[in-house]
Amino acid sequence: MVDLIAKKRDHQELTTDEINWMIQNYVSDEIPDYQMSAMLMAIYFNGMTDPEQAQLAQAMLNSGERLDLSAIAGVKVDKHSTGGVGDKLTIPLLPLMASLGVPVPMISGRGLGFTGGTLDKMESIPGFNVQLTTQQFIDQVATIHQAITQASSDLAPADKRLYALRDVTGTVASTPLIAASIMSKKLASGTDALLFDVKSGNGAFMPDDEQAEKLAHALISIAEQNGVSARALITDMNQPLGITIGNSLEVAESIAVLKGRGPQDVHQLLVTQAAHMLVLGKRADTLELGVGMAEDALRDGRAMRAFKQLIQAQGGDVRVTDDPRRLPQASQKVAIKAESAGFVGEIDTKALGVAVMQIGGGRAQQESDLDLTSGLVLHKKLGTPVSVGDTLAVAYASERDPQTIVDAVRDAYTITAQKPKITPLIHQIIK
Amino acid sequence: MVDLIAKKRDHQELTTDEINWMIQNYVSDEIPDYQMSAMLMAIYFNGMTDPEQAQLAQAMLNSGERLDLSAIAGVKVDKHSTGGVGDKLTIPLLPLMASLGVPVPMISGRGLGFTGGTLDKMESIPGFNVQLTTQQFIDQVATIHQAITQASSDLAPADKRLYALRDVTGTVASTPLIAASIMSKKLASGTDALLFDVKSGNGAFMPDDEQAEKLAHALISIAEQNGVSARALITDMNQPLGITIGNSLEVAESIAVLKGRGPQDVHQLLVTQAAHMLVLGKRADTLELGVGMAEDALRDGRAMRAFKQLIQAQGGDVRVTDDPRRLPQASQKVAIKAESAGFVGEIDTKALGVAVMQIGGGRAQQESDLDLTSGLVLHKKLGTPVSVGDTLAVAYASERDPQTIVDAVRDAYTITAQKPKITPLIHQIIK
Repeated sequence: MVDLIAKKRDHQELTTDEINWMIQNYVSDEIPDYQMSAMLMAIYFNGMTDPEQAQLAQAMLNSGERLDLSAIAGVKVDKHSTGGVGDKLTIPLLPLMASLGVPVPMISGRGLGFTGGTLDKMESIPGFNVQLTTQQFIDQVATIHQAITQASSDLAPADKRLYALRDVTGTVASTPLIAASIMSKKLASGTDALLFDVKSGNGAFMPDDEQAEKLAHALISIAEQNGVSARALITDMNQPLGITIGNSLEVAESIAVLKGRGPQDVHQLLVTQAAHMLVLGKRADTLELGVGMAEDALRDGRAMRAFKQLIQAQGGDVRVTDDPRRLPQASQKVAIKAESAGFVGEIDTKALGVAVMQIGGGRAQQESDLDLTSGLVLHKKLGTPVSVGDTLAVAYASERDPQTIVDAVRDAYTITAQKPKITPLIHQIIK
Repeated sequence: MVDLIAKKRDHQELTTDEINWMIQNYVSDEIPDYQMSAMLMAIYFNGMTDPEQAQLAQAMLNSGERLDLSAIAGVKVDKHSTGGVGDKLTIPLLPLMASLGVPVPMISGRGLGFTGGTLDKMESIPGFNVQLTTQQFIDQVATIHQAITQASSDLAPADKRLYALRDVTGTVASTPLIAASIMSKKLASGTDALLFDVKSGNGAFMPDDEQAEKLAHALISIAEQNGVSARALITDMNQPLGITIGNSLEVAESIAVLKGRGPQDVHQLLVTQAAHMLVLGKRADTLELGVGMAEDALRDGRAMRAFKQLIQAQGGDVRVTDDPRRLPQASQKVAIKAESAGFVGEIDTKALGVAVMQIGGGRAQQESDLDLTSGLVLHKKLGTPVSVGDTLAVAYASERDPQTIVDAVRDAYTITAQKPKITPLIHQIIK
């Protein structure tokens, strides 16, 4: 191992055999953490070549099981978002794609830090079960074209160990390590194609498009070297997506979106993602056709019906779709008022995510307890005119006092005299 | 600790408190190896500032005891060589300095890899004890101005742990880490001044002057920031020093040098080192005066008498000085003959060190057994004319067959048609 560390340290490429050997022996405890952490730091500094990172993802994938979805007809298409604030897109996207006949095998995660996790959000629906067995998961994708579950412990165990080590050794923010970690899990779902939504901005892990592009290319490269077709959208995260942040609130917003009554940005991103997935899934020849198909499925209620199917299949209370007040409701709320007039010129998106976390809408640590009712509803987004006393946002919570985040939320809003230039929602498409 | 790793990773300077905290908590097992190894790799890539490396050495020093030599009159001066092949300079230098009234408190090491260690060499003298107690060491420096001992386990324990970790994590070859490691031990001896002999060439850890200079500056900087005056010589290691490599052989050569009958290069370096130490020790105003004093002490036998005093004080058989055949003698020898004619154009110095190690003159691992009799006597050095059949060197050993290294030694010699340009022995003086 010390020779492999020295190779990586000295900018030499690790071979397939070396990477496989390293991951196998790390998982079997033959290689100690102190050598792996030195390797991770060397990778942090020197990066990895495309073949190296593809092989790393593959070796991590091979440390566990890979689902075999070959019995399911059609091109399976999955989506992965690198995480942002208010990004509830998976919730409406899954039934929308299913309603269009594209099987989506979604293995998802929980929230940590300033970003939420789709599994937590889905658990806002009373009874909804996100712990499917492998067989349940495969059967459900085969029958209703959609399923969402948490990763079993058999899935990429090397990634779990490596992620824990990276977390305590300052080696999280490394593009090849991030990409290999994502891909070791995403490839395990057995999907045929993948759409990446790489977030860029002040509420994303990648603060600018340059870094987002780097990650997008790494993800696509790994996918393609593992026989999975892929493309990536780089999308805006300089303000939260939609008007809600928080688990139960985001499910309610997703229901509105599926009914065609959601915020414009969520609708636009949903339809764009769907169109790309339709092309990846060979259901649409062009993006334009894909957009039309998605719009139709939303408008005529097929997507909403598929959402009900999903909830039913995973044991949830379907009545929330007609009566969103059946979702957990906060017992306290407080409005955050503007203290100056002008336009919303900037939103510190990450600060809003952190604020929501602080009142129980997210997890500071992996073992933190969630309050599914807590969160923010934004009344003002970028570019909106503001008068003194206008409500900028309303904070909701049941277990902690939403008053505690009022100042933080107000500070996250920068009110400017001039109307700001707004960056477009879709920054780039990378194939 | 993860914050400190991230700081170093991101090119920020660690504070005195942070470095102290880190070393204290590492030694007390609060910080795990896997975090320290990530830190070491980050230091490998990003280096350390002068204050950082001085503080690291200081913190490592403070993890153990520092000898108090303040009761001993005069400026104590120590020397440190970064290690080369055939570098026996400490053996004659210690008594030479003592004979000139400069107290030298020498804490030394054993050989590992292709370089030998002074302690092993001294143990070739029957009965010579290199394990002095702290009190014995201090008393001996006070009475006869010289003592040589191995480091006690109380001395810089942080360095022992860090070195072991660096060895298995590819982080040995880092100038600030090398410098801090050396200095944590050298400062512990309680010396007032230090002369560094930084070796440069194909038989040294620093392959060229650029890297040797970097290390020299780091060593001087750490010494001065810890109140120890220092200077460094960068000296040639493109061929072995003198004509012997191997423990017993090098002691015999050192005795010849003390009698004024040694090889020219060893004599020259000895007198040069002595002159610098006389200036550092405020015994000579100029180098020229120092050279004269050293030459005198060698010529009139004072240095030789002081060597006898040293041997006597540490329990060795003084008769070796008059009859070097009392040193352990090899039972086997084999001559390595030239197969082509010309000049000795190059010597792969490290290869000679490795060859000697292979017949027991050095240690492949820390726990390897030594054969003190084994080694090489060089009949030809750089620039010497060679005819076919001339003896290049003679290999000696008792426990292993010296025949096994004949090819390696011959291959280490490059015979050229033209007489090569020889680099000077002293490359640079750095203050």
